[in-house]
Amino acid sequence: MFKMVEDDEVDIVIAALNQDLGFLEEWRSLISRFHIIIVKDPELDSGLQIPPDFPSLSVYTRSDMEARIGPESLSLLRFTGFSTRYYGYLLSKRRYVVSIDADCVPLKDNLGRPIDIVRQHLANLTTPATPLFFNTLYDPYAKGSDFVRGYPFGLRCGVNCAVSCGLWLNIPDFDASILKSGKRNDRLVDAVLTVPKGTMLPLSGVNVAFDRELIGPALFSGLILAGEGKVRHETVEDLWCGMCVKVVCDHLGYGIKSGMPYVQRGGDGETEQEIQMERTMEGTSLLEVAVPFFQTMRLPQSAVTAEECIVEMAKLVREELGRADPSFARAADAMEEWVRLWRSMHTKQ
Amino acid sequence: MFKMVEDDEVDIVIAALNQDLGFLEEWRSLISRFHIIIVKDPELDSGLQIPPDFPSLSVYTRSDMEARIGPESLSLLRFTGFSTRYYGYLLSKRRYVVSIDADCVPLKDNLGRPIDIVRQHLANLTTPATPLFFNTLYDPYAKGSDFVRGYPFGLRCGVNCAVSCGLWLNIPDFDASILKSGKRNDRLVDAVLTVPKGTMLPLSGVNVAFDRELIGPALFSGLILAGEGKVRHETVEDLWCGMCVKVVCDHLGYGIKSGMPYVQRGGDGETEQEIQMERTMEGTSLLEVAVPFFQTMRLPQSAVTAEECIVEMAKLVREELGRADPSFARAADAMEEWVRLWRSMHTKQ
Repeated sequence: MFKMVEDDEVDIVIAALNQDLGFLEEWRSLISRFHIIIVKDPELDSGLQIPPDFPSLSVYTRSDMEARIGPESLSLLRFTGFSTRYYGYLLSKRRYVVSIDADCVPLKDNLGRPIDIVRQHLANLTTPATPLFFNTLYDPYAKGSDFVRGYPFGLRCGVNCAVSCGLWLNIPDFDASILKSGKRNDRLVDAVLTVPKGTMLPLSGVNVAFDRELIGPALFSGLILAGEGKVRHETVEDLWCGMCVKVVCDHLGYGIKSGMPYVQRGGDGETEQEIQMERTMEGTSLLEVAVPFFQTMRLPQSAVTAEECIVEMAKLVREELGRADPSFARAADAMEEWVRLWRSMHTKQ
Repeated sequence: MFKMVEDDEVDIVIAALNQDLGFLEEWRSLISRFHIIIVKDPELDSGLQIPPDFPSLSVYTRSDMEARIGPESLSLLRFTGFSTRYYGYLLSKRRYVVSIDADCVPLKDNLGRPIDIVRQHLANLTTPATPLFFNTLYDPYAKGSDFVRGYPFGLRCGVNCAVSCGLWLNIPDFDASILKSGKRNDRLVDAVLTVPKGTMLPLSGVNVAFDRELIGPALFSGLILAGEGKVRHETVEDLWCGMCVKVVCDHLGYGIKSGMPYVQRGGDGETEQEIQMERTMEGTSLLEVAVPFFQTMRLPQSAVTAEECIVEMAKLVREELGRADPSFARAADAMEEWVRLWRSMHTKQ
């Protein structure tokens, strides 16, 4: 059912927040045939330790960022912490991008073989999404599923799937307030579904893939708290990005799938971190303002590409949220600068 | 987490389309402590064979229908075929109604014990639904789940859950065109989720439960094809009912959950039926007209109860769809008559 994807159509993007990238060894059999983009967090001083013998691997560091986009733009876009990966998204020239946090390793099947998340993400992205009507049997284009009786025939062709949001076992991706409970996620739900049109979701940057040609310019955040980005439970960048990309997908008629594939997440590092309650509260209150804004946002019909959508969205962010908190005004500036950069790098001559 | 439900707050409603109700034996351990309402299809001539020793069981037949609501109303409401069960819904006086098709038996766990669908339906109905924002970890109120990071705190209390749509293994509930493939559904997805606000779903009558106090008057169809109702793959009544109830839930601020529990469906009876292509095509084309109608329907703010919503909806059906096909005009008449009956039977004196 799904389109063949060539190996050279895929980029694996990894943000290096710590110097030791030994976790890549566990991914070797799944990702070594693809081009791998590693972006080193510009705030990380020490050199990277990367396992040898990945045949196609590019590493980008602060000096590359400065040479390519300049310190002023860099200070606005803040490619640091988990947002480091956006620099990799910007540089990718391939159709599909798969990005996983560096504290994740593959799940194993019953025979101890790593489960192929790239394959599953590509299956999600290369089969239609169905955001216009709910299918009770989940993604009808997934193996073993179909459209249930009564699913309108006119909607069965679906729409292009632009984003595939994977999940994780072990360390959950909860807010700081819940995280300390010591709860582990050991429940794998073998399903994929399309998030319906008009419904926002909390997109997590832990394990995500997207069709860069369809939606690439929308995969950027802009909303980053001061000091954010070293631990996921404080992060708002991916949540903001998720709402931006969902509004753009709804507007342009693309779908977002959520569910499989899973990765195995973290040791206990995340829960052992000191929780910065001040930062956590700041993120929470910004999101409480942002959610109804995104839920009711309407983009003009004149915006017909992801770039145009983000430019229009940045205007709305500045006008409607900018006064509520300077973080929003700064996010709007960053979104516009991102699109400017994107255009300069990707516009065909 | 979920509210205790007393046994006498639950009605099990079964439509008897065939005389042999021996399948109830398989349900005995799960349902015998509840009141069971059996409604005999008025088009069925032979007497019913019901296993003995269910302590609380009421049987209603054509003569009861005629005495209670009269032949004229009966001919309009057409409680026959799968729509027979609506008569049971009308007569129920308990808070929760669980209804399963007579070709379904319980799934068994690894020890051969039947899996308790009533318990799961009640868990779905007595915990909040979350239709206003998507939770990537499915129903956050289900055991073993929670809200994922970034789920807005202001929306975590959720809303009342009015309907729980269960699923089925073995014989799938596909349209006639797919059904003949011989495909079986053997994939159980261990999840429940809320269908987001604004998204329609193909509600199946195979395995469904609802909170009668919240939404009872909306659980009726009115759209029934001539001769429909003996085999599910021709049925449109539950699909129409599902779109009505979804619009009412969205309007009144209630949620609909879909997923667990599963039942084991059918022998091979359904697929061996001759497919009536004419009836199938008629149903399909009516739904193609009805879906966009329901997707864009807005009920007036003055409608604040399920009864009022259905009355308003009937008007819209007559005005906007009535000319397209006489089946719609008849459905509108039936919906109004249903509410009139409901009020006469349930309004507190």
